[in-house]
Amino acid sequence: MRIVVLAGGIGGARFLRGLQRASPDADITVIGNTGDDIHLFGLKVCPDLDTVMYTLGGGINEEQGWGRTDETFHLKEELAAYGVGPEWFGLGDRDFATHIVRTQMLSAGFPLSAVTEALCDRWKPGVRLIPMSDDRVETHVAVTLPDSGERKVIHFQEYWVRLRASVAAEAVVPVGADQAKPAPGVLEAIAEADVILFPPSNPVVSIGTILAVPGIREAIADAGVPVVGLSPIVGDAPVRGMADKVLAAVGVESTAAAVAEHYGSGLLDGWLVDTVDASAVERVESAGIRCRAVPLLMSDLDASARMAREALTLAEEVRGA
Amino acid sequence: MRIVVLAGGIGGARFLRGLQRASPDADITVIGNTGDDIHLFGLKVCPDLDTVMYTLGGGINEEQGWGRTDETFHLKEELAAYGVGPEWFGLGDRDFATHIVRTQMLSAGFPLSAVTEALCDRWKPGVRLIPMSDDRVETHVAVTLPDSGERKVIHFQEYWVRLRASVAAEAVVPVGADQAKPAPGVLEAIAEADVILFPPSNPVVSIGTILAVPGIREAIADAGVPVVGLSPIVGDAPVRGMADKVLAAVGVESTAAAVAEHYGSGLLDGWLVDTVDASAVERVESAGIRCRAVPLLMSDLDASARMAREALTLAEEVRGA
Repeated sequence: MRIVVLAGGIGGARFLRGLQRASPDADITVIGNTGDDIHLFGLKVCPDLDTVMYTLGGGINEEQGWGRTDETFHLKEELAAYGVGPEWFGLGDRDFATHIVRTQMLSAGFPLSAVTEALCDRWKPGVRLIPMSDDRVETHVAVTLPDSGERKVIHFQEYWVRLRASVAAEAVVPVGADQAKPAPGVLEAIAEADVILFPPSNPVVSIGTILAVPGIREAIADAGVPVVGLSPIVGDAPVRGMADKVLAAVGVESTAAAVAEHYGSGLLDGWLVDTVDASAVERVESAGIRCRAVPLLMSDLDASARMAREALTLAEEVRGA
Repeated sequence: MRIVVLAGGIGGARFLRGLQRASPDADITVIGNTGDDIHLFGLKVCPDLDTVMYTLGGGINEEQGWGRTDETFHLKEELAAYGVGPEWFGLGDRDFATHIVRTQMLSAGFPLSAVTEALCDRWKPGVRLIPMSDDRVETHVAVTLPDSGERKVIHFQEYWVRLRASVAAEAVVPVGADQAKPAPGVLEAIAEADVILFPPSNPVVSIGTILAVPGIREAIADAGVPVVGLSPIVGDAPVRGMADKVLAAVGVESTAAAVAEHYGSGLLDGWLVDTVDASAVERVESAGIRCRAVPLLMSDLDASARMAREALTLAEEVRGA
């Protein structure tokens, strides 16, 4: 079975680990969000791609869900001693190596997709990980700074990591997305997929950004195979992260049903909500999307695997319908 | 008193620490060798400048004489795990920060001299450290590889660090030196100096490279102030490093007297040899260079300070002559 998964960072990565457990023989292609990429210290940093790669490759810091295990931060301390920031972005000594190798390969002329493949040669994540695009896309967020009242457009990472989404996101713009082309292999993988899954990743700044690359949304809608998603909102709040803030920016309420409607029945065939949101099933189904309520907390690998199984089961229901 | 010192790495740095102790009120300008600079992992590394900066700024690894104290090597381990080398060059996690800051500033258009000044803002070495040139100069060494018999020109660091000078240096070429210009401040410092010192640094690949930048040798010869050097050769062998190998490449025997003659009386006014080389004094003086035999082992800071005092004393003798 060929499965295509659109993935952001932590939520996508943990779901993928469950999917590998649930379907060990599946041929999984991951289309990774690159909208949260950022240039820091002259290096190209791809947080979501790395979180997927490290998580599936066994190098992730399990507690925090991003960055490397057994990590030190000496380089960052020294940059701070030189007065060179930003200090709010936590790059560890081991993690830096990934960005250095990536930046060197990009400088040598390799596209990001080839670089990602080369990095995965080491990590062997057990999936094919493709960035959504080789072109530069960077999500920016419009905010009003509380102190000065100044309206400012900042990089998504600054909004998310530095400000911890503490102010309203007035607009979320995937800068460059409209000019970006899907990376080689993205449209082919979608066209050849048996199932397409949206993990409980952020519907705006992760999956939404991937869908903003011209051609990807259309390819998924036209693939003619079940497209099933899992709600990142449980009980009207994000399971982790601050998805509610960026959902508000696109005018979507933070409920499991509203996110399904935001994707829409033109894209989504099936939707899993958590058992606490069982009352949303009817609303989602009335929007033309088949819906089931199942436990959606990825508390451990077994729980993630059960969620993946539920998603695949729903996909088969859609296919048989 | 304004003192100009031409410096390589460890020997130059330790001598400078002694000089600061010996002459705490002196205004010291260090013209640093950049011929051993190397680009590694997309970063500009300046080993000699950094050794001076770290040594005088209190950040040096005292035992090895280069690199940072309290250092870790996680980034390097990870690069190796990616199969990205070279592995023979020991860049530590803390040290990497210096190269990242330097590379970013160079990419932003600052010349190396301005970058070095900015780095020294943190380290406060107590001297003015100027690279010999803002232009790229890289010392290369011609060797015959013992296994294959292949004749090859390699970067000095590869010769020194990877091969540990285990094969003969057939030629030493400071590539780019003939086109390089002295960095801003170099000629001015020489013109305004009261004394010019050559520490016991490598006469070929450290001080020799600085002198290879057009204008510097002439400025020193024409400065009209005492120029005093200290022999890096004690008892016919280099105190540390492998100076004998590169001296052979330029046809100079590894003796304290021969190195003085190599500099020549047109450049050098005074020369200190170690007490074990007292018999060389006569030969050096017959070459027109005032010479004294004093202990030349920088076993500790006191010993280095005594050497610096002897050099300054000899300079005053030269001046009074």
